[in-house]
Amino acid sequence: MPRVKVEPEADVAEEDSHTVQDMVKVVFTPSGRRGSFPVNTPLLHAARVLGVDIDSVCGGRGLCGRCQIVCAEGSFTKHQIESHSSHLSPVCATEIKYGERKTPLANGRRLSCHTLLLDDVVIDVPPESQVHRQIVRKEAEYRDIELDPATRLYYVQVEEPDMHVPKGDLQRLVETLEQDWQLPNLGCDSRLLKTLQPALTEGKRGISVAVHKNQQIIALWPGFRDRAYGVAVDVGSTTIAAHLCDLGSGEVLASASLMNPQIRFGEDLMSRVSYVMMHPEGAEEMTHVIREALNQLFVQVAEKIDARVEDILEITLVANPVMHHILLGISPVELGGAPFALTTDAAVEVPASDMGLTINEGGRLYVLPCIAGHVGADTAGVILAEEPQNQDSMTLLVDVGTNAEIVLGNRHRLLACSSPTGPAFEGAQISCGQRAATGAIERVRIDPQTLQPRFKVIGSDLWSDEDGFAQAIQDHGVTGICGSGIIEVVAEMYLAGIVTVDGIVDGDLSSRTDRVIQNDRTWSYVLHSPENDEASIVVTQNDIRQIQLAKAALYAGVKLLMDHIGTATVDRIRLAGAFGSHINVQHAMVLGLIPDAVLEQVSSAGNAAGTGARIALLNSQSRDRIENLVKNIEKIETAMEPKFQDYFVDAMAFPNKTDAFPNLFSVVVRPEPKVVAENSGTGRKRRRR
Amino acid sequence: MPRVKVEPEADVAEEDSHTVQDMVKVVFTPSGRRGSFPVNTPLLHAARVLGVDIDSVCGGRGLCGRCQIVCAEGSFTKHQIESHSSHLSPVCATEIKYGERKTPLANGRRLSCHTLLLDDVVIDVPPESQVHRQIVRKEAEYRDIELDPATRLYYVQVEEPDMHVPKGDLQRLVETLEQDWQLPNLGCDSRLLKTLQPALTEGKRGISVAVHKNQQIIALWPGFRDRAYGVAVDVGSTTIAAHLCDLGSGEVLASASLMNPQIRFGEDLMSRVSYVMMHPEGAEEMTHVIREALNQLFVQVAEKIDARVEDILEITLVANPVMHHILLGISPVELGGAPFALTTDAAVEVPASDMGLTINEGGRLYVLPCIAGHVGADTAGVILAEEPQNQDSMTLLVDVGTNAEIVLGNRHRLLACSSPTGPAFEGAQISCGQRAATGAIERVRIDPQTLQPRFKVIGSDLWSDEDGFAQAIQDHGVTGICGSGIIEVVAEMYLAGIVTVDGIVDGDLSSRTDRVIQNDRTWSYVLHSPENDEASIVVTQNDIRQIQLAKAALYAGVKLLMDHIGTATVDRIRLAGAFGSHINVQHAMVLGLIPDAVLEQVSSAGNAAGTGARIALLNSQSRDRIENLVKNIEKIETAMEPKFQDYFVDAMAFPNKTDAFPNLFSVVVRPEPKVVAENSGTGRKRRRR
Repeated sequence: MPRVKVEPEADVAEEDSHTVQDMVKVVFTPSGRRGSFPVNTPLLHAARVLGVDIDSVCGGRGLCGRCQIVCAEGSFTKHQIESHSSHLSPVCATEIKYGERKTPLANGRRLSCHTLLLDDVVIDVPPESQVHRQIVRKEAEYRDIELDPATRLYYVQVEEPDMHVPKGDLQRLVETLEQDWQLPNLGCDSRLLKTLQPALTEGKRGISVAVHKNQQIIALWPGFRDRAYGVAVDVGSTTIAAHLCDLGSGEVLASASLMNPQIRFGEDLMSRVSYVMMHPEGAEEMTHVIREALNQLFVQVAEKIDARVEDILEITLVANPVMHHILLGISPVELGGAPFALTTDAAVEVPASDMGLTINEGGRLYVLPCIAGHVGADTAGVILAEEPQNQDSMTLLVDVGTNAEIVLGNRHRLLACSSPTGPAFEGAQISCGQRAATGAIERVRIDPQTLQPRFKVIGSDLWSDEDGFAQAIQDHGVTGICGSGIIEVVAEMYLAGIVTVDGIVDGDLSSRTDRVIQNDRTWSYVLHSPENDEASIVVTQNDIRQIQLAKAALYAGVKLLMDHIGTATVDRIRLAGAFGSHINVQHAMVLGLIPDAVLEQVSSAGNAAGTGARIALLNSQSRDRIENLVKNIEKIETAMEPKFQDYFVDAMAFPNKTDAFPNLFSVVVRPEPKVVAENSGTGRKRRRR
Repeated sequence: MPRVKVEPEADVAEEDSHTVQDMVKVVFTPSGRRGSFPVNTPLLHAARVLGVDIDSVCGGRGLCGRCQIVCAEGSFTKHQIESHSSHLSPVCATEIKYGERKTPLANGRRLSCHTLLLDDVVIDVPPESQVHRQIVRKEAEYRDIELDPATRLYYVQVEEPDMHVPKGDLQRLVETLEQDWQLPNLGCDSRLLKTLQPALTEGKRGISVAVHKNQQIIALWPGFRDRAYGVAVDVGSTTIAAHLCDLGSGEVLASASLMNPQIRFGEDLMSRVSYVMMHPEGAEEMTHVIREALNQLFVQVAEKIDARVEDILEITLVANPVMHHILLGISPVELGGAPFALTTDAAVEVPASDMGLTINEGGRLYVLPCIAGHVGADTAGVILAEEPQNQDSMTLLVDVGTNAEIVLGNRHRLLACSSPTGPAFEGAQISCGQRAATGAIERVRIDPQTLQPRFKVIGSDLWSDEDGFAQAIQDHGVTGICGSGIIEVVAEMYLAGIVTVDGIVDGDLSSRTDRVIQNDRTWSYVLHSPENDEASIVVTQNDIRQIQLAKAALYAGVKLLMDHIGTATVDRIRLAGAFGSHINVQHAMVLGLIPDAVLEQVSSAGNAAGTGARIALLNSQSRDRIENLVKNIEKIETAMEPKFQDYFVDAMAFPNKTDAFPNLFSVVVRPEPKVVAENSGTGRKRRRR
């Protein structure tokens, strides 16, 4: 990364001893930087002097191929008519050798380190040759990532030791790095000392080093090396996901996930905290299993690309406060009750080995900052991915898990809180609830006339009333209702009038349909009754109550933030996490999970927390950005706000269909076209209770 | 340590809302700083505002007793006649309680944190209440040490967590440290995170922390604590010595030493390097045993003061380059041959646990910088202790071990080299040589007339010709000749004419005395022939040769540096290490080990390398000083200098008694008075060959 900054118009002629006749002009696109240089100046050198962003790992030795450019125009003075080729030195032996050793240079591509200026030229630097190139993100994500990783590789040739200048080989290495790469005052992980001289010997004094934050040498290898990997990790209460990225290109090369093994200490966070309170060794035990799980994941993602965990140089990590503390070896007991005191809210940056994580010996761990006792590094990740602070419009970010983390604001102000939704949205505490897995009902429609349902299960694209459905599901059956399914069925029951505004299943309808059945003193709705011996899948009055409690908590949290910021409406809603990716937005609005908004402005943010971890991995400055930003986020503690209870109680009811949601009910509630007619024989035939 | 610097004449009246009538004057001695303050200002506060150096660990809570002062004069305006006591507030309950809890306050002593200004006073700050007090060094040492340790303790009371301000407890602690102690932007060892909240709970939010270099919290304890220990370590090829110091007072509280267990891999450094060359696992093995030995030493010194190793917060260490590398886990093979390339010459500062050293979990290790491949951190320690760079006179520092490290220069220029003396000066490679231990001959006199010797052995104060000698040594006998003994006997043999200028034992003398005996083709001198069956102790021709080789190497090294610096004479000679402490200077000059100098200007520097480690432990700035200084030391590689061989050959002969050493031979060579007459019957009687 060139440190020399020269204005685009810089002319370095005066600085040189050459006469004007010997000088040629070069313009680099897309930067537009330009200057005059002596004939035979290597293009890479000219680019560096002008501050043009061209990548290089090998330092101009023709090894890495990162500095490729294209000659866009042979001359920009009209007087010349020669062909392009004569404006640059001919393709040389090093370039041919590079092509043989790696992939041949594409048509017109040149290694700028081995191409000399002969006459005036326009040089195009393609995106993949720029250090700070943009990483294109998925559709669900907000904007591209500018590549600028905290850990970078550099190749240098270190001078032989000289008895007349009896300094250490480390000092020789550090001086070479300063000279070749403008990296002053580098430190070195002391654990590398033992490997330095053997590496210098093996590499015949050629050595590749990984430098962290332009400050510290954290790894070294003999000879030339240009692959550096990092892993972005999202530690959820239920699932841990890891994405292995190439720090040089920003690409995600492999992903893997596994269940959080702490589930055996308690399904939800608070049961895990209780476990620690009751078992003195519990915190250490949980720290151990989570670290082991991460180490397993690192092996998995590395194996997928035939690499070793030692090739991973950096980890960035997001987690909720409880997982964050446990992972760092801190007991989470203080997070179990008021005042919910964090041990630290700052970002943590340490050698990964300090936290028992097995990657490269000198590899680093960066954990994003927490925001408050209930709003963790995962929410910081969501904010980093979504950038509400750069929005003019009032933006609501919701990340639903066992708690819902809620962020509201725009470029003027940001507020955050956490609301105790409980695990109902994840399918827990629902009589037929289950995790999202093959066989779980995830989509539901109920005909308001006949009150007959149709549904889809995970693992099949067919609706339950379509031909072939029975066959499609015969291996696994219909096993339960997952989070998105429970929201749809309750919303559909409400829209069909089976459930009242107050959330009561209307027993009177049992006269119209045998799908409404009595269950002790309350009524239930039969969503699916299989032909074989398997139990029916039923939505009970208590299930409705659980969803009401959860959605009331979420809505009350949102309302509290809207209150504090002084707005009655929100412009944009972004739903993060698995929940946000799978629920049907209209159904969520029907139930009043989220405030009314123009439908087009409500969307899934994908795994925004994980994206935040990936941004922190690939863009070093984003770390400063989020660390500074979280300090200015206003934290609202729902437990401390008397109004929260009021809002919570108010939000128990379902929204009035016409008043509360003018935006929602002005559009079609069910946009999906019906493929087959309702009440088809197939659908009916299967019912046999 | 107060950061606020106010000029001594500062008057803070204007800054205060009090009227002039409410102000009183205070002068602090010995600093002379003075100012006016409102009545009832605590003295400690006034001292801080004025930048007066008063120690405190508890931050003015009356717990630590470090801030004691004496009221020197009740008034310095002549108008007043009241007694001293009324110028300060009366002794308060906290001071009485302090006296009951710890030691009562000495007569007139007050705790400045709990003493209020009532009227004009002169306050004396005794040395033991100053942070930057001088540690008085031993006579052998050059000057006192200013106490300013890198690791210091601070006590703070941290606010309770507050749900309305949801920051981490670490952030609360760091803010309190900044506010109470002017320590901005402190970091914290991440391994402490797990202990923070339990300590805050146990200490009822009162917590003591150890801060390293005003930058990093490295340890913490619940409640108040004012004992912090550090260990200064000198790792020699043969002996490892450790001194445990109180970082608050600078006192050495305990010392211990043990044999370097690496001796089993080779007596001298080069045999150990050879061992590594021949055994692939050898370096790791040696690293392991040296670290284990250090860990043993830490236990020993801690036990001596009823402390635990966890109470040790910092280690400073000096060692020669080979020991330095092995200790840091680096293979020393490159140091075994030209170009003698160090892996690193810089000072190393790391968590002690990174190097397998067991002290406090967050404890630090500081290793002084090396100077060259043969001139190590031990020599840096000698320079730190001796400060030749502050001398006007041309100063020669010599530290003799298996190699001799030589430093020559003054405030204008410093040169260093290492010369391969071999282990003869340590009694090795000498036929009857042995280490300095009970029974070893350490002093020798030979009567030039009779050629009869007398000697002293370690473990007895009697000369061999004194009454009671036989009884005094009967438990151990006379076991051999140690390093200082071999120098004396060879010098005495030369002075008595038994050895010629060329180092030949004169066989002709066998006619005059049966002490000169033939041994194959050469002649030997019988120093001691016991009455029982034990072997005689004899100095052979080869022993003389070994001493000649060693002294020629040392002298050639010194001469080379004198040449480079362009001086024919040296003004001062300081002899460091065990060798320097035990040899007789005149005898050393007789043999030509060191250049001629005025005898009064030749002295032992004691264990200067170890003293250097202690200075680095107790005075943080000394680290910067030595790190910068070593960069400017000119390193001379003896192996590269053709002249070294010439000087070496020239120096094989013993100096001409009158020409070469005018200073030496102008004074009495043997100052010790004879206690009993030579040729006494006792002496003779024992001889029975």
